[in-house]
Amino acid sequence: MPAAATPTSAPAAAEACTFCAIVAGAPAHRVWDDDAVVAFLDVRPLFPGHTLVVPRDHVVTLADLPPSGVALYFSAVRHLATAVERATGAEGTFVAINNKVSQSVPHLHTHVVPRTKGDGLRGFFWPRQRYGSDLEMASVAEAVSRAARGGA
Amino acid sequence: MPAAATPTSAPAAAEACTFCAIVAGAPAHRVWDDDAVVAFLDVRPLFPGHTLVVPRDHVVTLADLPPSGVALYFSAVRHLATAVERATGAEGTFVAINNKVSQSVPHLHTHVVPRTKGDGLRGFFWPRQRYGSDLEMASVAEAVSRAARGGA
Repeated sequence: MPAAATPTSAPAAAEACTFCAIVAGAPAHRVWDDDAVVAFLDVRPLFPGHTLVVPRDHVVTLADLPPSGVALYFSAVRHLATAVERATGAEGTFVAINNKVSQSVPHLHTHVVPRTKGDGLRGFFWPRQRYGSDLEMASVAEAVSRAARGGA
Repeated sequence: MPAAATPTSAPAAAEACTFCAIVAGAPAHRVWDDDAVVAFLDVRPLFPGHTLVVPRDHVVTLADLPPSGVALYFSAVRHLATAVERATGAEGTFVAINNKVSQSVPHLHTHVVPRTKGDGLRGFFWPRQRYGSDLEMASVAEAVSRAARGGA
């Protein structure tokens, strides 16, 4: 029987992680915590009240969140969406996750941002594209569908 | 005993809803469906493969999703995030919900958008702000925390 647990990469990653530090008690403007998540204000908000919801366990992306953790994590996100909107007197919210690209901290976090009409956060957003043809769109749909069904 | 069910606003809303129509079988480039959701390509994608995941039941916002529906809905969103990334050869994904403000169709939908570094979808995004002071930030945190705990 080993005298100590074998080190693994997960604790190492967690040790260097800003959000794991906050989960463990580092200073932050906390707004909620429960068994599954800690939520705190983003220090560089899109608008005041911009909240980040992070799972207590160190996972990097949404895909890395274990299936068994989905219900508690997103129940907390849902709860915070209501709280942020109510607390800030907003008319709605923007709830978003960046997986890998544009993800500033490699610990899953959902942004909950209060929204008000005309707040300057351009809709949902940037220039949209169009598919070149219905055939092209059907081909993309087929590729996603195949991946979702677990195919190559 | 009434001869017919009393009409309510929910079926009326569903009847006029573009996404309920797709759930019921209207044409769309479907990529996934299960007991809880239907997922299909957005006709005006940010990037090809941009997918919308909608619950089969007509609910308007994340807050309107019943607590019992959170696990299945977000399990599907998580599943599609992996499938979209894989199918498009992307390096990451952007997963987002607009609640009320900037919400084009009043039926809850999560955008799953494939992302690649340098794709022009400016990070997460727009000019960030700073709180005027730590005291101001603490006051906002307290307001959100109070709302999350169910207070006024």
